[in-house]
Amino acid sequence: MSETVPDTMRASVLIEPGTLVVEERPVPRPDRDEVLVKVSSVGVCGSDVHYFQEGRIGDFVVDAPLVLGHEAAGRIVAVGADVPESRIGRRVSIEPQHPSATSPQTLSGRYNLCPHMRFFATPPVDGAFAEYVTIQSHFAFDVPDSISDDAAALMEPLSVGIAAAHKAGITAGSRVLIAGAGPIGILAAQAARAFGATEILVSDLDENRRAQSREYGATSVLDPRTDDIAGLGLDVDVFLECSGATPAVLSGLAALGPGGRMVLIGMGADEVSLPIPVIQNRELVVTGVFRYANTWPTAIDLVRTGRVDLDSMVTGHHDLDHVAEALIESTRPAVLKTIVSPGL
Amino acid sequence: MSETVPDTMRASVLIEPGTLVVEERPVPRPDRDEVLVKVSSVGVCGSDVHYFQEGRIGDFVVDAPLVLGHEAAGRIVAVGADVPESRIGRRVSIEPQHPSATSPQTLSGRYNLCPHMRFFATPPVDGAFAEYVTIQSHFAFDVPDSISDDAAALMEPLSVGIAAAHKAGITAGSRVLIAGAGPIGILAAQAARAFGATEILVSDLDENRRAQSREYGATSVLDPRTDDIAGLGLDVDVFLECSGATPAVLSGLAALGPGGRMVLIGMGADEVSLPIPVIQNRELVVTGVFRYANTWPTAIDLVRTGRVDLDSMVTGHHDLDHVAEALIESTRPAVLKTIVSPGL
Amino acid sequence: MSETVPDTMRASVLIEPGTLVVEERPVPRPDRDEVLVKVSSVGVCGSDVHYFQEGRIGDFVVDAPLVLGHEAAGRIVAVGADVPESRIGRRVSIEPQHPSATSPQTLSGRYNLCPHMRFFATPPVDGAFAEYVTIQSHFAFDVPDSISDDAAALMEPLSVGIAAAHKAGITAGSRVLIAGAGPIGILAAQAARAFGATEILVSDLDENRRAQSREYGATSVLDPRTDDIAGLGLDVDVFLECSGATPAVLSGLAALGPGGRMVLIGMGADEVSLPIPVIQNRELVVTGVFRYANTWPTAIDLVRTGRVDLDSMVTGHHDLDHVAEALIESTRPAVLKTIVSPGL
Amino acid sequence: MSETVPDTMRASVLIEPGTLVVEERPVPRPDRDEVLVKVSSVGVCGSDVHYFQEGRIGDFVVDAPLVLGHEAAGRIVAVGADVPESRIGRRVSIEPQHPSATSPQTLSGRYNLCPHMRFFATPPVDGAFAEYVTIQSHFAFDVPDSISDDAAALMEPLSVGIAAAHKAGITAGSRVLIAGAGPIGILAAQAARAFGATEILVSDLDENRRAQSREYGATSVLDPRTDDIAGLGLDVDVFLECSGATPAVLSGLAALGPGGRMVLIGMGADEVSLPIPVIQNRELVVTGVFRYANTWPTAIDLVRTGRVDLDSMVTGHHDLDHVAEALIESTRPAVLKTIVSPGL
Repeated sequence: MSETVPDTMRASVLIEPGTLVVEERPVPRPDRDEVLVKVSSVGVCGSDVHYFQEGRIGDFVVDAPLVLGHEAAGRIVAVGADVPESRIGRRVSIEPQHPSATSPQTLSGRYNLCPHMRFFATPPVDGAFAEYVTIQSHFAFDVPDSISDDAAALMEPLSVGIAAAHKAGITAGSRVLIAGAGPIGILAAQAARAFGATEILVSDLDENRRAQSREYGATSVLDPRTDDIAGLGLDVDVFLECSGATPAVLSGLAALGPGGRMVLIGMGADEVSLPIPVIQNRELVVTGVFRYANTWPTAIDLVRTGRVDLDSMVTGHHDLDHVAEALIESTRPAVLKTIVSPGL
Repeated sequence: MSETVPDTMRASVLIEPGTLVVEERPVPRPDRDEVLVKVSSVGVCGSDVHYFQEGRIGDFVVDAPLVLGHEAAGRIVAVGADVPESRIGRRVSIEPQHPSATSPQTLSGRYNLCPHMRFFATPPVDGAFAEYVTIQSHFAFDVPDSISDDAAALMEPLSVGIAAAHKAGITAGSRVLIAGAGPIGILAAQAARAFGATEILVSDLDENRRAQSREYGATSVLDPRTDDIAGLGLDVDVFLECSGATPAVLSGLAALGPGGRMVLIGMGADEVSLPIPVIQNRELVVTGVFRYANTWPTAIDLVRTGRVDLDSMVTGHHDLDHVAEALIESTRPAVLKTIVSPGL
Repeated sequence: MSETVPDTMRASVLIEPGTLVVEERPVPRPDRDEVLVKVSSVGVCGSDVHYFQEGRIGDFVVDAPLVLGHEAAGRIVAVGADVPESRIGRRVSIEPQHPSATSPQTLSGRYNLCPHMRFFATPPVDGAFAEYVTIQSHFAFDVPDSISDDAAALMEPLSVGIAAAHKAGITAGSRVLIAGAGPIGILAAQAARAFGATEILVSDLDENRRAQSREYGATSVLDPRTDDIAGLGLDVDVFLECSGATPAVLSGLAALGPGGRMVLIGMGADEVSLPIPVIQNRELVVTGVFRYANTWPTAIDLVRTGRVDLDSMVTGHHDLDHVAEALIESTRPAVLKTIVSPGL
Repeated sequence: MSETVPDTMRASVLIEPGTLVVEERPVPRPDRDEVLVKVSSVGVCGSDVHYFQEGRIGDFVVDAPLVLGHEAAGRIVAVGADVPESRIGRRVSIEPQHPSATSPQTLSGRYNLCPHMRFFATPPVDGAFAEYVTIQSHFAFDVPDSISDDAAALMEPLSVGIAAAHKAGITAGSRVLIAGAGPIGILAAQAARAFGATEILVSDLDENRRAQSREYGATSVLDPRTDDIAGLGLDVDVFLECSGATPAVLSGLAALGPGGRMVLIGMGADEVSLPIPVIQNRELVVTGVFRYANTWPTAIDLVRTGRVDLDSMVTGHHDLDHVAEALIESTRPAVLKTIVSPGL
């Protein structure tokens, strides 16, 4: 270690639903294959809000104090025994997962499906609303100076868009429908554009969000209240569901052409009644993405080359003492991405 | 034409739901690119029964007299102007579809999804419960003498199994669950075995069907009333749904491991309520097959080489005057495949 | 037919290697499924030059008078019996192939590999250096007014780039090396960019071509005489060989990282000595493209949306009386695309 | 550790080309994530012979004493700190590789291409011609009692066949040509059969090997001296090159139909002159396999279910004092697989 690291740090801890407290905690020590990162920016995600408000997401229940936040970037300040010291000082974007190295899923390149996964801000693993975090060295990706701290943090939600674009098989000339123009929908639109889609239709109930989506790749926008998305005969190749709204799931499925693919990204109802004969007769594909694997190099390249713009999506910053405000703010339609900056 | 073909023929015609009448009709004349086939064997399919009993399948409504039957084989007795006369005399298996040659779906190899499809025994296109039918020459596939007329007819339902195995990505070592041990389930099991699956679990309510499935590839059988298929932790790679039963759809989906694929083959409820977070968190793939494309050469090869056994699946024969009996018989659990032989 | 079409037309005919003569010929009549197109623009391709100078390309030998030219656009002036009259008047880009509708290759979506292919300007099939040509209706693609005649003609070579990008699996974030910055190399670079490649390295012996390639997607350029392409450790994902030069084939292969893919596009030596252990130890993929299939909709979309720029590639126009000049001009390094405009 | 393990063991060490000496060496100690395996069977591979006779394979040079042997099975007798003790006593098949857990290749499921690979019997890593070896726990795969020690060892070369079948896309109905009926060719034939190939043509110069191949899946055999493999118009889907002979590479490539795939498995000439226009005009795919990844579960399943027969391929056994004899014996055409049994 070449840099002075304090013994303790400040962390924003979820004590119970609705209650966040800043605690003084020991700075974590990196394991042999880990690095210690001084956190610069952490994006606020809908799942953070969900844990904050509900204390659970499906089967994942917060039953002990938990640090939220998993869209993180920072600077390496210390390294574990097996990591070259030359990494100290590097500005990095964090891929916030720790799969087993030896599960069949990991060995076949789908480590996001590893049953032994430990993931930031998912009980019982602490996240990044703190001054320092540790991560395996290979999941701390160097970013060039041209990429800001905030953009480095937002590689995480961009990775969801990239994973969805891969899963959907988006390529040059694809025609894509996206439901929901919130942060994930916007990132999905940017990913679709970067993968070569030439028609990107974005639907959202909110007029401002619809208008905004045009700056991020939408070639047309739809209002689900006035446009009959199911009945327009869109025949799109791909439908990326980012709203979690059941009507959106159904109208998007109906808008798919023969062999079309729907990727479920948004969180919504636990069950949706799907029209089986439609899936059969058009040989539609219904699937979802669970986080991502092997997306960071692509995410960084897309941002570095200007194919994707993350900085303009940031609508506000808060310090560690105002994480609750950041979480609540991020639920407003006018907000795309709120950042928590522990160093503020 | 080198063979004497009569002017008229007998055909079994569906007049209204439940009423079949044998009519004397003109023998059809082959178009330039077609052949005229003297029909030897026609398998009875569940969809024939459906049309017979209900007069419709979903949006396809029988509103004029219709000849049923689409699993057909026979002998070429005449050819259209553009077809070599050398084809006369050939024993053939019929792929009973006529897509447009120029739709985007056809041009990209998915002609089964062509919106201009004309398909045997699908209103308003007549099928094969008749002495003669016409078909485009390239959809009348030569079969070797070692393949019986009945087996030649059953290339059609086997093709559904092959299409499903392709769609499901079954390969050597795949672990496959199949719901339903009726004719389609048995053919799916045979296809799965031929594609290299090493574990083939077949579920059915009927004990005899379960037992029988072991002769066609099942390595284990399950009784949905006593085996908790969803809860066994099967973690299969593939689920082929051949029962149409909603509980089977749900338990099979739950039995899929990470990245598993469900192919919906059976006809059942118009809507099924699916657990979206399960599809997302395991990145499951839900899809269906609509008939088949480019399967006949494989089907014939699998039967010719003994990888698939069709003859032993035939449980009865009827002549054109007893098509109604054949249709009704085919609904009995003990029956796998009933054949209509127009020449009997 | 709603438009006056003359009985005869002018066509530039290759009589023998090096000799082109403008002849008065009957205007062809469209078959039932064809349209008659009044030709507006025809791009000059290296293969036209090859036939002009050598009288053959490999096994394809010009042994009778032949009209060259296969990159064509125009306006529909008459239709065959089975084509809707509403097509008359449409500005179209021509996909200059006529496969059999029933070969296994066509039925499986690879009609470019159909053994019964008839292709423009490939002996004995006439091409488009003429006032009128016929083509199957579905291979005459409508273009919007925003796309020029020249750009409509150049959908053909762009399609080669698109086919290569597909074959190479280029996607967002791909790192691509391209050898040769002639017209095909430039179109390959544009296609790679449109498919999402974030690093596009272009090599060429000619300094001007290298510089020019930067306007069409190249992120870096290489001079094969001074840059050790094989030894730079580039580890690219994809190598698109557009030069036909044997040293370029070898250095590009060496530049591929593990699992990298080389697509051979350029015409060059009949045999190249390849390092087998390198292919094995890195599991490289070596393949080629033969024309294209199902690319026109994508090509038109990419040009319509500005993802690909064809107009700026046009460096000169000639009329039917100066096709020889057009062919010779197109061999100059400073020339990208020469157009023959029969209407000039 | 629950079993008595001695401090030293016997190992057959290659001192210099042609010279093997049995040395007394310390029994290796398993790392935290490793197991110690008492070796029961080790198959002899052509690469062992190559190192023994030449002291090198391409860039891999034996410049220090080396233990050969990498097709190994045995019983776990001790475990590292992080491995459950319950593994002690298990009969296992060894996947003899140790990739980095964090390279991009490993993370994307292609760990065989990891640049930091340490592989058994590849300088400077010792192999399995010894009484004990260590291996990471997850690369020691449990085998059921129905699988013999020899068969457990031969999962390794079978994995090469499985990897090649995957790479070649062999599926039900594939038509496959295999050059060379030595052990790798026979295992490739068995893999092709298990993947569903219905036509498997095997060529070999040796009549006995040709005859023998029929027992392992060959549906026809070819003699390269009398059969014009290139000229027969075979139009196969897949060519698996297992001979290393340049004429076989060329005739097999010529035997591929449109879109056909050649997988180079055998070791032969460093360079082969390939016909580029043939690769282009038929869009052939030329590639190779470098070992394997994620094949063991499939290999074990195929042997367990009788789809592949390994035991009958074993033609002789030797103890550790006769490894040189085993290596020399394995070069005889009549020999398929020679086994070294350290416990004999």
